[in-house]
Parts: sequence; C-alpha cells; structure tokens
Amino acid sequence: MKSIRINEVGPRDGLQNESSPISVEDKIVLIQKLVEAGLKSLELTSMVSPKAIPQLADAQDVLNKLEVQSSFHGSVLVPNEKGMERLLPLTKTKPFISTVAVFTAASESFTQQNIRCSIEESLQRFESVCNLAKNNGLRIRGYISTSFYCPFEGRVDPAKVLPLARRLLDMGCYEVSIGDTIGKAVPKEIEEVFSLLTSVIDPNLLAGHFHDTYGMAIANVEQALRLGVTSFDSSVGGLGGCPYAPGASGNLATEDLVYFLDHMGFDHGVDLQTLMKATSFIQSKVHHAMPSKVFQALRGSIK
Amino acid sequence: MKSIRINEVGPRDGLQNESSPISVEDKIVLIQKLVEAGLKSLELTSMVSPKAIPQLADAQDVLNKLEVQSSFHGSVLVPNEKGMERLLPLTKTKPFISTVAVFTAASESFTQQNIRCSIEESLQRFESVCNLAKNNGLRIRGYISTSFYCPFEGRVDPAKVLPLARRLLDMGCYEVSIGDTIGKAVPKEIEEVFSLLTSVIDPNLLAGHFHDTYGMAIANVEQALRLGVTSFDSSVGGLGGCPYAPGASGNLATEDLVYFLDHMGFDHGVDLQTLMKATSFIQSKVHHAMPSKVFQALRGSIK
Repeated sequence: MKSIRINEVGPRDGLQNESSPISVEDKIVLIQKLVEAGLKSLELTSMVSPKAIPQLADAQDVLNKLEVQSSFHGSVLVPNEKGMERLLPLTKTKPFISTVAVFTAASESFTQQNIRCSIEESLQRFESVCNLAKNNGLRIRGYISTSFYCPFEGRVDPAKVLPLARRLLDMGCYEVSIGDTIGKAVPKEIEEVFSLLTSVIDPNLLAGHFHDTYGMAIANVEQALRLGVTSFDSSVGGLGGCPYAPGASGNLATEDLVYFLDHMGFDHGVDLQTLMKATSFIQSKVHHAMPSKVFQALRGSIK
Repeated sequence: MKSIRINEVGPRDGLQNESSPISVEDKIVLIQKLVEAGLKSLELTSMVSPKAIPQLADAQDVLNKLEVQSSFHGSVLVPNEKGMERLLPLTKTKPFISTVAVFTAASESFTQQNIRCSIEESLQRFESVCNLAKNNGLRIRGYISTSFYCPFEGRVDPAKVLPLARRLLDMGCYEVSIGDTIGKAVPKEIEEVFSLLTSVIDPNLLAGHFHDTYGMAIANVEQALRLGVTSFDSSVGGLGGCPYAPGASGNLATEDLVYFLDHMGFDHGVDLQTLMKATSFIQSKVHHAMPSKVFQALRGSIK
C-alpha cells in the first residue's frame, strides 16, 4: 500500500482567512485535535507582520503555549529574516517546530500584489532565511503559488515553474509544494506542469497544493498521484476562502482528501472520524458551514 | 476534439427533491433557459404517481404548455404501463418528447424501498413500457441506480450491474446510465464497474450518472472518460439532494461538468455563461444556495 503524506494547512492558511476572531486557546485545541487524528505534518502559523495579517498576530503566543504529546512536524511560514529572528528562540524549547516554510509564486504580478517584491527578490530574501534554518537544524519547505493560473495574468507558462522548483530545492527545501492558488486548474494542466517537473525532479520532492474553488481538487490529486506525487496539502473542513471569489471555497478539505485516499487504497495515517471532531470544533468557532463535502455528508455520523 | 453528450436531469431528478413549490410556468422557463444554453438532452419530468412525488404532479401540464424553438431530446421517466398511457397522447403534439426513461437498480433492497418490487419485477414492468415506446417511435433510456453502493447493502458487486445493462440494451435502450446514487464511489470503483461493462458493451452505449455527495464526481467523470464513456448525466446547479445525507449535495452540477470538459478540451455544445443564467433563475425559486462550486465561484461574473 503506497504511503501518502498529508500536510495540514488549516491552522495557518485556513484561519488567516477567517473574519471571526479565534482565541489562542482555540487554535491550540484545534492543532491538538488534528494531531490526535493522525496528522504528522501541520503548518501551525506564520511569522508575517501582524499588521498584514491580524488573524495570525498571536503566532508566538500559540507556539509558546502549545503542548502536544505525540511527535509531529510543525511548520511555520517565515517571509523574511525578521520573521526568522522572531521564530528561532521558540524552536529551542518547542521541538515540534521542525520546519520553516517559504513561499514565492510563478507569476510576477501575483508576487508583487502578495508580497510586494519580484520573484527574484523573494528568492533572495529566502537565502538568509534558509541559511538560518539550516544552521539551526530546521527543515525547509517551499511553496510556489500560482503555478497554473494567476488571478491577474491568467494561465501561467509551466516553463516558469520548473526553474523556481529547482532553485528552492537547491536552497535546501526538502519538498516544494506546487500551488493551484485560485483552483482553476484541471487534470490536463496538472499533467502538463507535473510532467515537466518530474522529468528532472524526483516526484517525492514535490507536493500538490490544490484549491477546490471549481470542484476540481480531487481529480487533480488523482492526476498528480498518477505522476508519482506522494505529498498533498489540505485544510481541515476546507477552511481558507479564496479572496478572488467571495463565498467560494478555497483549500482542498482534508476530510475529502482522506476519504478519497482511504477508498482508493492509499495509506496516510489519518483517522476520518477523529479528524471530523476537529472539524466540528473549529466550525463552532468560525460560525459558518465548512466547505468539505465529506464533512457535510458524514457530520451526522460523528461518534 | 472528442464530443461528449450531457443529459440534464435537473427539471426531474433535481426538482423532485425540492421542498419549495415550483410553478408550472417556472419549470417551463427553466427548461427553456437550459435549452438556450445548448443542452440537447433533458429529462423533463416523470409520470410517477402524484401521491408518491407531489413535486412532479404537474408533469402533463408542464409538457403540454412547454414551447421550445430549438430541437432537443426531451425524456420523461415512466415507471409503468399506466404512466406510458398518460404520456403517449402528449407525444403526438410535442415532438421534443422523444425519449422514455426507465429505471431499475443493482441492489434488491434499494429497488424494494424505491419502487416496491424486485429487480426482476421492475424489468418485467419495463417490457410493456419499452414495447409501447418502440411502437410509438420513442427512444428508450435506461438507468441502473446503486451500481456502486447501496444505502442499505453497502458496496454492490460489479457483477450484478453487467447482466442488468445487457438486459436493458436488449429491451431496446439506446443508452444505459450507470448510477452512483449515493455518491460514495471513487475512481477505482468506477474503473472496476466500467471496465467490466466495456469488456462486452460498446462504451458509447453507456452513461455515467455520478453524485457529488463526497466531492468525487468530477474525478469519477475523468475515470469514465479514460474508459471511453462519452455521455454523462448532471443537474443544473447541482440540484437534487441525497435523501440519505441531509444537507449534502446530490447530483453532479452541470456547471462543474461543463467547466471540467471545457478546460480538458472536450466538445459538448453547452455555453457556461448562458447556463448560469438558468442556474440564477432556479436559485431564486428554490430559495437556497446551489451546491455547484463553479456557480459559487463565477456567479458574480454572470453577464
């Protein structure tokens, strides 16, 4: 049975889009429940400017107060050296903070809008972040947003993604996550981009980060699996709206991914029933329905 | 460019699940808007007992008053000879009523619950319906519900589906629609059932009827396409709840199917923008959000 790695991004990518304030204590309970469900890789929060994303202004507090019994890989998004300086002291007492996440994008306009610099400048910023991570024994995970479609430029040339993935791997990333940020891609486009990437990169060094905005995410996961990809990002309940399509769903829901992998015969270590307890918990805090179709269909059966 | 046939089931399979009463006039406007969008095959209503399904008690009235300029294949679900007697006079003045739809299921318990007879008895009922249809120059379309999972029996043996499909084709069906009635199937199971079927049946005589209850429908369409299936059922907006999972979505949304086929490079004749005008119209009548992810993402852009 082939083993798949699931990287849960709900506590960061999901909650940063929520308008209801979520307390530090509730964020900690959510993370604990997700680890209980068997998730071994979780993006916990981000060291972005609290002004830019007030939802994650409590990042240091969450990490400081978080206590988890089981071992897992916790990652923290770090945009620059300043963020790294805030994070490093915490890693000394919190061994679960094993991973630093850095992100760029395959579209210049998106990178300018999102992080106010060019793609090249974003990579230069990461050089120092990555060196600090390596010197402190931390793993580095890379993201490439808008690897298929850009909300400003439309379809992105797959040839732009490959050199970025190689650069991130050369900088020390153990894995690069290829993002369909606005969820417009279909399996044909997944095949175009991932075929090009896997022609020179081991597919085990790549992850698929698919959004379900147009309902294509599961079909895209299946296409990536066919090309040997063994790692996928997803978000509890499907948390994480898409700012370019109000009301539309964002990240692929972890429940939908787990249901699919279970029934397709892949091993992944996550228990759907326990996971849905985490979903129920966070649903009661964000005060809206969860986009996850599997959660909607099965929530009545949570034991 | 490979051509795909879409069979729109919203006016029947969708509206029969709605609690808000929809007027005859509104049903007619919906059908007209769907035909305007380019749909060439539509299931219009059903000749079931008005006591069993009050939502479709106006079936004869809808067909009588419906006027459509463009040509299309309209089908009507006919459960028995009595239903056929109600339908036949209408076919004399309404040339768009070209097709009779009959349905059975691959699970005995479901058939008993759904149409109060055994699978064998349901097929015997269809003999006279099919003979009447043929004698009156009507096409016959067959459905096999619960071809993958049964809400009472769980996983259905694929070997039960094959003889039913052959029997329906022998009775004169031009196409048999293979239904994942509760939406639990994943591509692996689509492959099992359709590989068995297409080992002896031309895939052009089969259709996929997938529900999106667990978010698997598009991945299932893709799998069926790989096996040569060229016809799919879907419902405008995703109308048609699943009675076994309250609140969960039912039929694959036509918008999601059209988006997928457009971007995968298949020809189908439906215009997504015009289709979404039909979706907006019926949304205003059923008074709830449409499950279609594509409609949710794009409804702001309807021109």
